[in-house]
Amino acid sequence: MTNSPQVTVLCGGVGAARFLKALSRVLPAADITGIVNTGDDTVLHGLHISPDLDTITYTLAAAIDPERGWGLVDESWRALEALRRYEQIRPEGSQAGGTWFGLGDQDLATHFYRTARLKEGARLTDISQEIASAWGLDYRLLPMSDDPAPTLVSVDPKDDPGGDGTGWISFQEYFVRHRHGIAVRELHLGATSAHPTPEVVQAISSADAVVIAPSNPFVSIGPIRALPHVDELLSQRRDSVVGISPLVGGAAVKGPAADMMTDFGYRPDSVGIGQIYRAICGHLVIDEKDAVLARDVEEQGISATVTNTMMGDPAIDEHLARLTLTAAGLSV
Amino acid sequence: MTNSPQVTVLCGGVGAARFLKALSRVLPAADITGIVNTGDDTVLHGLHISPDLDTITYTLAAAIDPERGWGLVDESWRALEALRRYEQIRPEGSQAGGTWFGLGDQDLATHFYRTARLKEGARLTDISQEIASAWGLDYRLLPMSDDPAPTLVSVDPKDDPGGDGTGWISFQEYFVRHRHGIAVRELHLGATSAHPTPEVVQAISSADAVVIAPSNPFVSIGPIRALPHVDELLSQRRDSVVGISPLVGGAAVKGPAADMMTDFGYRPDSVGIGQIYRAICGHLVIDEKDAVLARDVEEQGISATVTNTMMGDPAIDEHLARLTLTAAGLSV
Repeated sequence: MTNSPQVTVLCGGVGAARFLKALSRVLPAADITGIVNTGDDTVLHGLHISPDLDTITYTLAAAIDPERGWGLVDESWRALEALRRYEQIRPEGSQAGGTWFGLGDQDLATHFYRTARLKEGARLTDISQEIASAWGLDYRLLPMSDDPAPTLVSVDPKDDPGGDGTGWISFQEYFVRHRHGIAVRELHLGATSAHPTPEVVQAISSADAVVIAPSNPFVSIGPIRALPHVDELLSQRRDSVVGISPLVGGAAVKGPAADMMTDFGYRPDSVGIGQIYRAICGHLVIDEKDAVLARDVEEQGISATVTNTMMGDPAIDEHLARLTLTAAGLSV
Repeated sequence: MTNSPQVTVLCGGVGAARFLKALSRVLPAADITGIVNTGDDTVLHGLHISPDLDTITYTLAAAIDPERGWGLVDESWRALEALRRYEQIRPEGSQAGGTWFGLGDQDLATHFYRTARLKEGARLTDISQEIASAWGLDYRLLPMSDDPAPTLVSVDPKDDPGGDGTGWISFQEYFVRHRHGIAVRELHLGATSAHPTPEVVQAISSADAVVIAPSNPFVSIGPIRALPHVDELLSQRRDSVVGISPLVGGAAVKGPAADMMTDFGYRPDSVGIGQIYRAICGHLVIDEKDAVLARDVEEQGISATVTNTMMGDPAIDEHLARLTLTAAGLSV
């Protein structure tokens, strides 16, 4: 009898959540560790909000709203609606009472618990596991860091008329308030001055395989990579690190990844993804629609595996999970 | 044409809210200033909650739930219900996820706005006025202080089995969690090391009359009086300060005032109220059911006015407001 392999997945939000779920079709959830981006974390109304952790937790618990892809199913919005009363009268220059970030009534409970536990001095690492356990999950979900590591986005100030004139805005202002519909000039990853937790270092170092989920390489995986030592640890074990391209047919399945590739001077396809990841991963899984790109990917010194990466169907999900682990050298 | 008199009212929660409303039947709301106890304020789930300010604001806006006497009418409780999931799994010793303090979904918006404005550096004084204006109120509602001034309650540790063993608990733990059903040994008023705001000092000094609302003398009016200088300012103008007894027929209209009178060695009636207030007020309005106590009240050097103090009927309310101001020497 052999032990099941331990697999660690670098995670953003929706795409990563779907892949973790897919992975649980071939491995026990308890052997799967997600290292989750917290560069999107924000404080609104005094509440500490961790969007990627919540999206993953809710998705794995089958409690996510399937239409929106974020927040809880069967949600209500009474608190947010009541907040408009105050948003309308707040003094000029105040951001209080803002209703642009969707916080459902049931979802608030998660932010209440996280905020209260942080005030008690608990680590985000422990809190996130408590939240996962409250939803009955066996997965190990680790925030990438217990330190604040906010991602800041530089945009043309003209595109942010309500802003402070510098063009620097928080990730959520870019992503939610502006619906990622404006060009990004530059990113500042707060993670460069944060620390990965011991659990994160251990999960990267000792896993039998590391997977880079099909998430945005700049604003989801980028913050995890920006943490001190992470890229070094990954490059040391590059042959058992496998990425899944988030781009299919030259577009992101969801979100602004393709636009950002162009903004930052990369080809907006899986070849560009290979360029971004080649120092830290030896293998890339790309979608069958992009089979023609396999050679260009491999020319960068990365093995390419071609399959259907559009998750949602149990058989496709299981096949993707199995092929991904096989690419990393595991037989499952 | 003479200006309408300016009247300042020292306020707790429900009884004070009703009296402010009564007063608006004889004076423009804009000429009425409420100085509101903030000793009950608490932070839960990271949110700054000011129960007395909210009760007064909601009552004056005719938005209070008439059955409960607190919170908003037509309220829902989805966030609080969702919080039970976390309350059940929190580690031992953690207070996070507690659901004992009722926070309705719409009510949350008020706490969100207050918390966000405080984080922006705004004064509670300004925030409270913004909140009042959001509800369309013309009254001037002043928190007694911009400084934290928590009231702590000492109880028998045996009566607080989940506590830390000292017997010292927050006011809301005593009032809401224990439903003020346990004996109070001692109060610690945080207000003694807080400061009244300049607006509060001015409102007490320059009003044509000051009214002490029918609120709990220890935990509602007590914190206001415990602020440096307040008792001195009141005693200097004692002849135009009038109290309304919160006790009728030896019982509080609402809350634990009568029990506390006994706990602290006072007669649990309007004579006891007179004893507590005689240094700072020259007049006391007592209920007609207690007409027999008028002489004992007056023996303490306080004039007694006897009338129906059970508010709720427009004619009774107006009469009470008029008599109260008359007792303070105003003709309205």
